[in-house]
Amino acid sequence: MNWVDYFDFLRPHVSIFLVGACRIVESVGEGVTDLKPGDHVLPVFTGECKECRHCKSEESNMCDLLRINTDRGVMLNDGKSRFSIRGQPIYHFVGTSTFSEYTVVHVGCVAKINPAAPLDKVCVLSCGISTGLGATLNVAKPKKGSSVAIFGLGAVGLAAAEGARIAGASRIIGVDLNSNRFDEAKKFGVTEFVNPKDHNKPVQEVIAEMTNGGVDRSVECTGSINAMISAFECVHDGWGVAVLVGVPNKDDSFKTHPMNVLNERTLKGTFFGNYKPRSDLPSVVEKYMNKELELEKFITHEVPFSEINKAFEYMLSGAGLRCIIRMGA
Amino acid sequence: MNWVDYFDFLRPHVSIFLVGACRIVESVGEGVTDLKPGDHVLPVFTGECKECRHCKSEESNMCDLLRINTDRGVMLNDGKSRFSIRGQPIYHFVGTSTFSEYTVVHVGCVAKINPAAPLDKVCVLSCGISTGLGATLNVAKPKKGSSVAIFGLGAVGLAAAEGARIAGASRIIGVDLNSNRFDEAKKFGVTEFVNPKDHNKPVQEVIAEMTNGGVDRSVECTGSINAMISAFECVHDGWGVAVLVGVPNKDDSFKTHPMNVLNERTLKGTFFGNYKPRSDLPSVVEKYMNKELELEKFITHEVPFSEINKAFEYMLSGAGLRCIIRMGA
Repeated sequence: MNWVDYFDFLRPHVSIFLVGACRIVESVGEGVTDLKPGDHVLPVFTGECKECRHCKSEESNMCDLLRINTDRGVMLNDGKSRFSIRGQPIYHFVGTSTFSEYTVVHVGCVAKINPAAPLDKVCVLSCGISTGLGATLNVAKPKKGSSVAIFGLGAVGLAAAEGARIAGASRIIGVDLNSNRFDEAKKFGVTEFVNPKDHNKPVQEVIAEMTNGGVDRSVECTGSINAMISAFECVHDGWGVAVLVGVPNKDDSFKTHPMNVLNERTLKGTFFGNYKPRSDLPSVVEKYMNKELELEKFITHEVPFSEINKAFEYMLSGAGLRCIIRMGA
Repeated sequence: MNWVDYFDFLRPHVSIFLVGACRIVESVGEGVTDLKPGDHVLPVFTGECKECRHCKSEESNMCDLLRINTDRGVMLNDGKSRFSIRGQPIYHFVGTSTFSEYTVVHVGCVAKINPAAPLDKVCVLSCGISTGLGATLNVAKPKKGSSVAIFGLGAVGLAAAEGARIAGASRIIGVDLNSNRFDEAKKFGVTEFVNPKDHNKPVQEVIAEMTNGGVDRSVECTGSINAMISAFECVHDGWGVAVLVGVPNKDDSFKTHPMNVLNERTLKGTFFGNYKPRSDLPSVVEKYMNKELELEKFITHEVPFSEINKAFEYMLSGAGLRCIIRMGA
């Protein structure tokens, strides 16, 4: 049995706005060899079985077995839930179910990390922050001194900006419809701002004018189809790479003139920043430990579990970036 | 003056179906230092100044100064033509004007090659053959043992297949609306064939079924917008890369659901196979010289210059692949 049961004790934390969390292993199931009780882990909404074609590919992190599944609600091995209340089953949530003190997770959805890492900081790496960071560092791969446009300055976009800062980009252009986000974005390395509402031409044209033909890289973190198209069309011909991160709507259609592609632009998409959860997240935690990556600035709120609904309100109103929920408090 | 005047003598050849040619330098203009009379060269429809941002980028071959220009018709330095008939100017054609025994070309549009290379073979590398070959070798970059779909089995598509063969792809799936092309395509390494007309579902679905989810790479060489979309949607999620080569129509729109991108597919376009003409073509000629690349199979016809219209007829009717025109004959 390739399973781990792990339960958290000692300073349990869970970051919301998506499903990030950090836990400590309480016990492991039969057949689990690479984790033991006491290990510090990041449970991740998408897994890595290490055996499928995707896991064996250097390029993909979209595990065939454990790819995000928002509908399953049960454990893979027996199709049952491990939660119940008054005899009725409670279903699991995207493989992690981290709004609880104890949870049961497939071993493939758990990344073992440095036990010295503060759980109430690195928990944010389980989802959106790694998504944005990896979109830039693993997929867009800006060179030192290059220009990068970031579409959407929420937590994912700011993590993408943080990636551009770490990569040594010299111009990081933040694009958002809400100018109030611009001040905070400066902390994440954003050097210039464009609010599409301030211009009466498409934002891709505005950016092309600012950058002598287009940025070297762009990362789209909004989920808006118009932003996706602008993010692609604002990169320079010859070498520009645009990376889509935001989740679109069902009826969206990405449309562009094919000459925009033929002129040697590249369009890529990424899922969880192309990080393979078990293989790659430990090194992202190390980036934080050696102060290359700053996580504190993403954490704007903290609530006890009893006030979890306040955390949802922060998320829905767009107040702040990430809220830590302390389970024991 | 950064110019070269070169005139051909000794076995001059020009391949048509596009503008490939191979020549010998007769004389060079003031300031030209990297060519001398007697050098064997490939004149190319697009140039490499070696000084602009594109030439200095490792990724681009779309030179700012000498990028293909079908309208200019004159030399860059003085805005004048070097051809005339009965006192009237004749305009230059895409920087090369190779339907003539003597021509004048910007030094940036001339690649110096191995003088041992047979001019009546390597002339085909000046345009379409390098375009298809480079699309696969430089842009799609299939790994050994991988699967590649080629859309369009004309000379450019077959050159793309030749690239996949050289790269060691184990499955090369040729897609064409004309099943008559399939026999010839086998010579270029194509292992399987799909005629979209034989199926009542989109060809991308047919290919996904043949390949357990999609090919590793695809190269589109038709210019048809539907083929472009199919070429993108037929690559595997997680790692698939589609490369567009064919020139679209003015009113075309490339449309796909953004989830096709987000699932870690890559869409790229290429111009002249991403070869920088002066820097890279000499090594392509060497690939032919060391028998890695086969060019003879692309040359299906040969005519004397007096029968040049026959060569155009071959091109327009789709008969064969490349026709060599012998100037002296």
